[in-house]
Amino acid sequence: MQKLIGIDLGGTTTKFAFLDMDGNILSQWRIPTDVSDEGSHIVPNISKSIVDRMAKEDFTVEDFAGIGMGTPPGSVDNDAGEVNEAFNLNWRTIQPVREQIQQELGLPFVIENDANSAALGEFWKGAGSEADNVVFVTLGTGVGGGVIADGHLIHGVNGGGGEIGHITVKPNGFLCTCGKRGCLERYASATGGVVNVALDMANQFHGNSQLKDQIDNGQSISSKTVFFLADHGDILANQVVNEVCKYLGLALSHVGNTLNPENIIIGGGVSNAGNTLLQLTTKYFQDNAFPAVRDSTKIKLAQLGNDAGVIGAASLALQFKNSMNV
Amino acid sequence: MQKLIGIDLGGTTTKFAFLDMDGNILSQWRIPTDVSDEGSHIVPNISKSIVDRMAKEDFTVEDFAGIGMGTPPGSVDNDAGEVNEAFNLNWRTIQPVREQIQQELGLPFVIENDANSAALGEFWKGAGSEADNVVFVTLGTGVGGGVIADGHLIHGVNGGGGEIGHITVKPNGFLCTCGKRGCLERYASATGGVVNVALDMANQFHGNSQLKDQIDNGQSISSKTVFFLADHGDILANQVVNEVCKYLGLALSHVGNTLNPENIIIGGGVSNAGNTLLQLTTKYFQDNAFPAVRDSTKIKLAQLGNDAGVIGAASLALQFKNSMNV
Repeated sequence: MQKLIGIDLGGTTTKFAFLDMDGNILSQWRIPTDVSDEGSHIVPNISKSIVDRMAKEDFTVEDFAGIGMGTPPGSVDNDAGEVNEAFNLNWRTIQPVREQIQQELGLPFVIENDANSAALGEFWKGAGSEADNVVFVTLGTGVGGGVIADGHLIHGVNGGGGEIGHITVKPNGFLCTCGKRGCLERYASATGGVVNVALDMANQFHGNSQLKDQIDNGQSISSKTVFFLADHGDILANQVVNEVCKYLGLALSHVGNTLNPENIIIGGGVSNAGNTLLQLTTKYFQDNAFPAVRDSTKIKLAQLGNDAGVIGAASLALQFKNSMNV
Repeated sequence: MQKLIGIDLGGTTTKFAFLDMDGNILSQWRIPTDVSDEGSHIVPNISKSIVDRMAKEDFTVEDFAGIGMGTPPGSVDNDAGEVNEAFNLNWRTIQPVREQIQQELGLPFVIENDANSAALGEFWKGAGSEADNVVFVTLGTGVGGGVIADGHLIHGVNGGGGEIGHITVKPNGFLCTCGKRGCLERYASATGGVVNVALDMANQFHGNSQLKDQIDNGQSISSKTVFFLADHGDILANQVVNEVCKYLGLALSHVGNTLNPENIIIGGGVSNAGNTLLQLTTKYFQDNAFPAVRDSTKIKLAQLGNDAGVIGAASLALQFKNSMNV
């Protein structure tokens, strides 16, 4: 029985896994991502790490059916296997990733952006499994999304499918890095969203709040601080969480009314807030969802955590293999 | 070469067409929809009309591959071929439409709601043809929608896919018949939307406006009146059109950011306003669409007009036939 290789390429760490054809992780490891010299070491380091690990585990290339990889936000050309302008990786020109890796390892290679890759992971083995229609939203440094409709990952005509983070939730709201205003990302990502909302609301808040005190004293706060304090009764922190969930629930209702998926799955660092995030988001989702959607689409927390990336990446390799066999 | 039968069942008129396998209309006709006696004559009348027409054109059942039908909003069970609670038709209990028609005519029969049917029509032969990802929004008595992703019509887990008319465009806005507030339908459908917005804005308008005068004098106005007066420089009418397009463009941006389809096609009676509607809606769409989406997803007017329904219905029959042959 052949095996799959899943890679989750991040700006600081690259995660790898060998998996069986059912998506079970057999072994996994990680290396630091060396982004120096315009990221020119990244792909050679990946190839070398796989070769070394195969040797260590007494595998040869013939033991594997293919490699899938998720990459940080940038411009991924799935067909060409290329990545352009992934600033987290210092890649400013087109990188022929597939060509380089296939040359080195001689295995089929498929690439996808990391939100889509995590979506596929949850679709295959996590909170979305056994459903044909699943939407994944990841609340991390940014807000990413992946849409699986009728079992197909939707890229759209220009790779903009699943850009849930840039749904306008507040016309004329905060300016986003994408150039427009009021994007969900400015309300529900970690630092640029939750912390951003907290700083803004603290400005206008008068009352007793540890969150307010920390901000006024110049202490740095994180999304985790905000949810922790909310869970412990801090008034301002709860107002911030309410604001975040209001916009997240609204944006997810738009997705729900468009697709009526079986599950909308929330992952990424902010989702570690758990039920505090889930319950309020579900309330605002239901307030804004069409009855047939409200009664059927479920909002869930991701189940695979950090493994979603490598598992989803491996599923890409499997899909590719199956498409070749048809 | 076999032929297809497309039916577009409406609350006042039922339209029929015979089409070739390429979706070209060979002949078409219509009958009034008799909704008396709890709509019990509707299906027998449809069967009879088809039998009569076949005789008139010297066709037999063997000349046809199947029948597709679009029905007014209600609860359509595509798998069972049943319709429940279609109030426009006076259907208050489950109607086994497929069973009745197949019994009478002996041809395969497929049913779909009318917005999905029109979406399939535009996808096959109209403004969306040759694209795999198309969204259709119809602005009529209500606002309906159909989503085609990767070539598949998306129903969602509970038939709520494509409920674009119930995307919340204004939190705490006008109450909708669906029970929630601020739905697109209350801003962009004909009477319940455009006229509704006009009556509301006229209340607060002070200035010279023929639209305002007509409303104040108790003359009835229509969506057509509003767009006609806007085209002729009426200030209030232009403010109303701006409001309608602002919310329509916003809702379509949500759909665009989720799916990045090649085309979003606007049909239905309100779309007869043409470029007056299209240009402003496109502006607001672009204001709220993620750059990769803004640069690629095109907003278009429907091309098939009233024929979209019968053509899309026929495409259902064709799809069904092809799925049986695989």
